[in-house]
Amino acid sequence: MAPGNVTTELIERHRETLGKALEAIRTRDYWTPYPEHPKAYGEQAPAAGRAAFDALLNRHFELGQPGDGGPVGAEVSPYGIDLGITYPRPDPDALLAAMEAALPAWRDAGPEARAAVCLEVLARINARSMEFAHAVMHTTGQAFTMAFQAGGPHAQDRGLEAVAYAYAEQTRTPAQADWTKPQGKRDPLAMTKTFTAVPRGIALVIGCNTFPTWNGFPGLFASLATGNPVLVKPHPRAVLPLALTVAVAREVLGEAGLDPNLVCLAAEDAGEGLAMSLATRPEIRIIDYTGSSAFGDWLEDNARQAQVYTEKSGVNTVVVDSTDDYRGMLNNLAFSLSLYSGQMCTTPQNLLVPRGGIDTDAGHRTFDEVVADLTTAVGKLLGDDARANALLGAIVNPDVLARLERADELGEVALASRTVAHPEFPDATVRTPALVKLDAGKPDDHAAFLAECFGPVAFAVAVDSTAHALELLRRTVKEKGAMTVGAYTTSPQVEADVERVCLDTCASLSLNLTGGVYVNQTAAFSDFHGTGGNPAANIALSDGAFVANRFRTVEVRRHR
Amino acid sequence: MAPGNVTTELIERHRETLGKALEAIRTRDYWTPYPEHPKAYGEQAPAAGRAAFDALLNRHFELGQPGDGGPVGAEVSPYGIDLGITYPRPDPDALLAAMEAALPAWRDAGPEARAAVCLEVLARINARSMEFAHAVMHTTGQAFTMAFQAGGPHAQDRGLEAVAYAYAEQTRTPAQADWTKPQGKRDPLAMTKTFTAVPRGIALVIGCNTFPTWNGFPGLFASLATGNPVLVKPHPRAVLPLALTVAVAREVLGEAGLDPNLVCLAAEDAGEGLAMSLATRPEIRIIDYTGSSAFGDWLEDNARQAQVYTEKSGVNTVVVDSTDDYRGMLNNLAFSLSLYSGQMCTTPQNLLVPRGGIDTDAGHRTFDEVVADLTTAVGKLLGDDARANALLGAIVNPDVLARLERADELGEVALASRTVAHPEFPDATVRTPALVKLDAGKPDDHAAFLAECFGPVAFAVAVDSTAHALELLRRTVKEKGAMTVGAYTTSPQVEADVERVCLDTCASLSLNLTGGVYVNQTAAFSDFHGTGGNPAANIALSDGAFVANRFRTVEVRRHR
Repeated sequence: MAPGNVTTELIERHRETLGKALEAIRTRDYWTPYPEHPKAYGEQAPAAGRAAFDALLNRHFELGQPGDGGPVGAEVSPYGIDLGITYPRPDPDALLAAMEAALPAWRDAGPEARAAVCLEVLARINARSMEFAHAVMHTTGQAFTMAFQAGGPHAQDRGLEAVAYAYAEQTRTPAQADWTKPQGKRDPLAMTKTFTAVPRGIALVIGCNTFPTWNGFPGLFASLATGNPVLVKPHPRAVLPLALTVAVAREVLGEAGLDPNLVCLAAEDAGEGLAMSLATRPEIRIIDYTGSSAFGDWLEDNARQAQVYTEKSGVNTVVVDSTDDYRGMLNNLAFSLSLYSGQMCTTPQNLLVPRGGIDTDAGHRTFDEVVADLTTAVGKLLGDDARANALLGAIVNPDVLARLERADELGEVALASRTVAHPEFPDATVRTPALVKLDAGKPDDHAAFLAECFGPVAFAVAVDSTAHALELLRRTVKEKGAMTVGAYTTSPQVEADVERVCLDTCASLSLNLTGGVYVNQTAAFSDFHGTGGNPAANIALSDGAFVANRFRTVEVRRHR
Repeated sequence: MAPGNVTTELIERHRETLGKALEAIRTRDYWTPYPEHPKAYGEQAPAAGRAAFDALLNRHFELGQPGDGGPVGAEVSPYGIDLGITYPRPDPDALLAAMEAALPAWRDAGPEARAAVCLEVLARINARSMEFAHAVMHTTGQAFTMAFQAGGPHAQDRGLEAVAYAYAEQTRTPAQADWTKPQGKRDPLAMTKTFTAVPRGIALVIGCNTFPTWNGFPGLFASLATGNPVLVKPHPRAVLPLALTVAVAREVLGEAGLDPNLVCLAAEDAGEGLAMSLATRPEIRIIDYTGSSAFGDWLEDNARQAQVYTEKSGVNTVVVDSTDDYRGMLNNLAFSLSLYSGQMCTTPQNLLVPRGGIDTDAGHRTFDEVVADLTTAVGKLLGDDARANALLGAIVNPDVLARLERADELGEVALASRTVAHPEFPDATVRTPALVKLDAGKPDDHAAFLAECFGPVAFAVAVDSTAHALELLRRTVKEKGAMTVGAYTTSPQVEADVERVCLDTCASLSLNLTGGVYVNQTAAFSDFHGTGGNPAANIALSDGAFVANRFRTVEVRRHR
């Protein structure tokens, strides 16, 4: 079926961007079409974005979906304000039926039209990045600049990256091919073959509290670009960013003459368990999930009718062996521990430091000195409340706060958390990270550092030696998984050894980060987020495996 | 780690073939490096192949694997001869430990060296195609020419295709990349990143009785080329072709300075249940399986620690609506039903013919006339015993024979099976196919045609109309799965309708085959075997999805 005029125009409009994205995932050099500098969005953008966000508050968010069962939603910002927004309560039977009905035309539109529609959705989201920033800030607790960047352009990058992989995968096989097999003196066998990418069915995206767009966009756009209708089930505390996303997608689809019900929202209140009941419905054929290992494992075990893509918990390690830039290392680590109060799946948790200390350009530093110097670096970084607020953001939910408040039960607190007052939002829950000393030589300490302690609690773990650190790293990744591994060393041998452990356990490694790149940040089109090969996740964002099984290819052959 | 000299030489030797394979999977035109004409192998080849096969009989097949627990094996040819070959009885603990120890060096060899080693294995297997033909013939019952082609060059094609996909997938991301992010007036952020394909772990290939090489090679070579050691667990009745394969692989690996234990054999006697105990071992991270849905489903449900790739049972349909080449249609169908006595997962089972008959270039033909004409065509095709033997081969095992012998319990036998004498092997079990008439209007008949009846039994099913046929096709594929769908029609509308059903149910379609291409045959590099999107299989041979998740990518980044 030929795409309509609007779709043809969209294909032209986004052809260059798609081409550049396809090139970027091949070269893996830095590239983005979505500027991360707020200034790039114009002088009016901040005020307009704020006004657009304010206009969303204290009202019903209308989406025009079938089967609206009345209002649902009760988001309260980690900055202390009640958003007062309600969303349509989903009627799964009505939604899923409408989404299934929308599938064939979307399948028939083909990979190019689908990519163009996805890129138009992303372009419109990009234009509203300031509005999204407020939505992300007031659902996740991210500070505004981070909410803008990570929740805006960086999330859009990850969405576009998924679209590029999806497009590349669907077009590896030509839409049509001639096959001519010689038969000696007889006429050759001549066939014409068509190859059509056929979607799995309805895809379910289960959003998370901390990165609704950044972690939600890859699965959403990978599924949509491969022809699957997408049902978005946001976290009850972070509905707005994904509701805005769904609204933009529905708007673009409708304008292109396609069925808006290809993208629907399924909001719920906390404790309703909607993800469980949706995930096991036969109509759901793909699930993307970011969150706890407990529910991720449940999905993998129970949603057997679906392809299940999960990013779960992990325990991230930094091996500290030696450094020729002690100051740079301390500052880099201090930043990594502080950013978004450690509420990233990529934040380092266990800093493994030899009990006998380490060699540095500032001389040999004992374990206690390294810990003290790091607490000083964190203290200095967060000493100014304005800068602290800009880096830390707010604590996303009471569970994280409770873990922080019980950090002193785990070991000796080397750096205590402090409460930071927020100038604009007096009820914001802002805390600096705590650093707790543990000793790998004490069996009692193992339970603490071998479990994920998500949030602003890190452990400085004394180890016998770097070899011991690597042994512990190996065990931690193998048993608990890891989204990131960091290491500091001046020794080529140690560097090779830690690389080997990361290859053996399938973990991503950042070596000797001392400048403006942090272990907890990855750049789309260049860095993979996770590996999909250890217990922390069964996918990487994004690679061929992330998209290849979201569709299948149907061949039709006939004589030519 | 740099590849050794031997490996470097292999890379050069096979570079052109790999390049052509990569091009073929993009263009999907006809291509093969492995001639299917026996004559291409030289005048001496048949006798040499026969002698090589004879030399294997009545002795122990030595592989030099660790932990040899004494002889196992009791293959009896469907042509009635006892092969008298024994194989090393595997000690799983010893084998798996040796295979895990072999993994790191194979991972470090890199995608190019791995592809070259795989292509050398395939080249040596190709050179021994005549020997393999006898091994395939006397384990599967395929007639010699088919055993040569399908078990030889065509299987090698599928192996090479998998290697090409694996190589392409691993090299989509460069081994190393520079990343430079501008920072305004400051120095840019500059990182060097390495990307390493890391295998899942040990892969298990569970072979089938009917196509040990054709169905075994894709998974074997896909896993090996992506860095995974491969343990081959052949069907107890079809060990020899895969034992030869393992021996060749071990020979090539050893010569290249790599560990032969990267490929091991785990033979068993019937009823030992070795596949079950191996499949759930924690060391096994990938499983490729071809066989019954019952065991395929069991693997999917129980081998949760592994990626499980299955090709299972299905019910293949041909919709007969109309034709402008009645003779061509009948001959084509007769051939498809007869080839290898219908013992192919791609053989048509249900021929859906409107009760009121069909329009043809030979006039309107009633249902009974179509059935009678088809039985005549089969009778003519197989009337000569020499040609019958060359087409039919032998019945692979007693279960298939038992189903054939009970075919008359299912409905009115329109074409009875007959026993064909084999000139060389008097104890061969050779049978022509049976065609049974059923009626979709009779609820009692549904159980017969809605279940797989693997082997030389096909059903001519009377339906109300072509629309009824399409409804039945949709239901059959959705509920039972299908490796193939065929259709005959002169109506563009019916053609569009059947295409739509195949897109909706994710089934491959062959339209109006009346010449030398048959619905049950697919050509590597051009046709996908299966779709992976209906219950008959969760994979297609081969596509990106077949290889993409057999490895993961580990990134290491550092300042530049």
